[in-house]
Amino acid sequence: MNSEIGINSPIGIFDSGLGGLTVVKAIRERMACEDVIYYGDTAHVPYGSKSKETIVGFTQDAVRFFLDHDVKCIVIACNTATALALPEITAPVPMLGVIEAGARAALAVSKNHKIGVIGTSATIASEAYPNVLRKMNPECAIYAHPCPLFVPLVEEGWLDREATKMVVKEYLTPLKMAGIDTLVLGCTHYPLLANVIGEFLGPDVKLVDSASACAAELESILKERGLLRTEGAGSETFFVTDGAAKFAETGSRFLGRDLQAIKFTPSR
Amino acid sequence: MNSEIGINSPIGIFDSGLGGLTVVKAIRERMACEDVIYYGDTAHVPYGSKSKETIVGFTQDAVRFFLDHDVKCIVIACNTATALALPEITAPVPMLGVIEAGARAALAVSKNHKIGVIGTSATIASEAYPNVLRKMNPECAIYAHPCPLFVPLVEEGWLDREATKMVVKEYLTPLKMAGIDTLVLGCTHYPLLANVIGEFLGPDVKLVDSASACAAELESILKERGLLRTEGAGSETFFVTDGAAKFAETGSRFLGRDLQAIKFTPSR
Repeated sequence: MNSEIGINSPIGIFDSGLGGLTVVKAIRERMACEDVIYYGDTAHVPYGSKSKETIVGFTQDAVRFFLDHDVKCIVIACNTATALALPEITAPVPMLGVIEAGARAALAVSKNHKIGVIGTSATIASEAYPNVLRKMNPECAIYAHPCPLFVPLVEEGWLDREATKMVVKEYLTPLKMAGIDTLVLGCTHYPLLANVIGEFLGPDVKLVDSASACAAELESILKERGLLRTEGAGSETFFVTDGAAKFAETGSRFLGRDLQAIKFTPSR
Repeated sequence: MNSEIGINSPIGIFDSGLGGLTVVKAIRERMACEDVIYYGDTAHVPYGSKSKETIVGFTQDAVRFFLDHDVKCIVIACNTATALALPEITAPVPMLGVIEAGARAALAVSKNHKIGVIGTSATIASEAYPNVLRKMNPECAIYAHPCPLFVPLVEEGWLDREATKMVVKEYLTPLKMAGIDTLVLGCTHYPLLANVIGEFLGPDVKLVDSASACAAELESILKERGLLRTEGAGSETFFVTDGAAKFAETGSRFLGRDLQAIKFTPSR
């Protein structure tokens, strides 16, 4: 750990691709003075269909990248990497995932404690959400379902098409039948499908995404350690391992505004 | 080049993931005596949304792997890698892609010379098919369209669902309107959607996949160089850079039978 690390050091935010930009957005809204460095592993995206060993290796590369850039903390903004790699990795700065925050937010809004969780195949197979939810509240009933077509649909920009509605219906009918009152969007791409998902499940089912919950958790960690920056304009720099131009184009959809300062960094 | 390379050396077949198994199938049906080594780069799949530089790098790794295994020739069974990487790479053994074979097959069956081409975003953006088709026949009219959701649909096993039919309709309506009589399935995943695609386009549109055309071309190259094996049982070995178990499971769908001898090889 570099001795220069302190309150003015940047926050590192990692995702397999674009999805973590929803977390960037939430962090910037809450902590506008902070500098943010984003690392999107677009050369290897998607992670959701790959093995634990491979995902751990990719995440280790990202952590190494952040330590080289003297970050004061690392946010694993990817649910799949949080589920599979975070438990396996250590770093000399605080590391934070999205799953605990998302689980906590879900328990806070659920009334009947029937909670649905959707995510990539790897996230769902890892059982990370059910394990955390049951640890926080042993009484809750959890209905988990992988939705591997949601990420490609979002990347294609098909946020509100008939085909998208049909895929949503196909995946979510069992959760609707089970009577969930809360659905965790356990992948950072899924908030972009919130309208179609909400339309299918109806107004009685609350949708929870971990981006804002994660940002709140990060803020209290930084405050606790005296690392929260409350002055200055805050900057953002984006690094991707492939396709900077495409990242800029699709990324604005996630961030809700244009992206600046996108740089290429070779993977490994 | 190893001096041991000769008629009994294996054929190397490369794909970004599973799709190349349709080419393995065609090669084995035509040249049953040959030993085949397959390299599926499942740690980095899909290629279709990535940049040229990245795809060239991944393909170079595959070629190096094959040269270490003393193959007598290399088949790039991935349309995206053929389109973007094959023109950039040299090797001391014959290398063969799928695009020329597919284009030749399309021109052989088309009567009105209105030819549709579908593939990944990278393949279509490369213009590889139109360039080759126009070189072979300057008169033909080409209608190309990227279909990025087809690969995830095939990987999910949704070969005949309503949602799949809707995606097919969305992507292929402009090609149908254009009056094509031939459609090149320019991605090795797409033959698994041939039924739904054929149903939508009707019996007057011929579907061409490059697997069998590529196998025929390979046979004549080997024969020409005195490298065609006509005795022996032939074996097949599959190497993947991630997820051997999943590869075995989904791979049988492509190969039409169970896969044996799947080995893990780390990428790079």
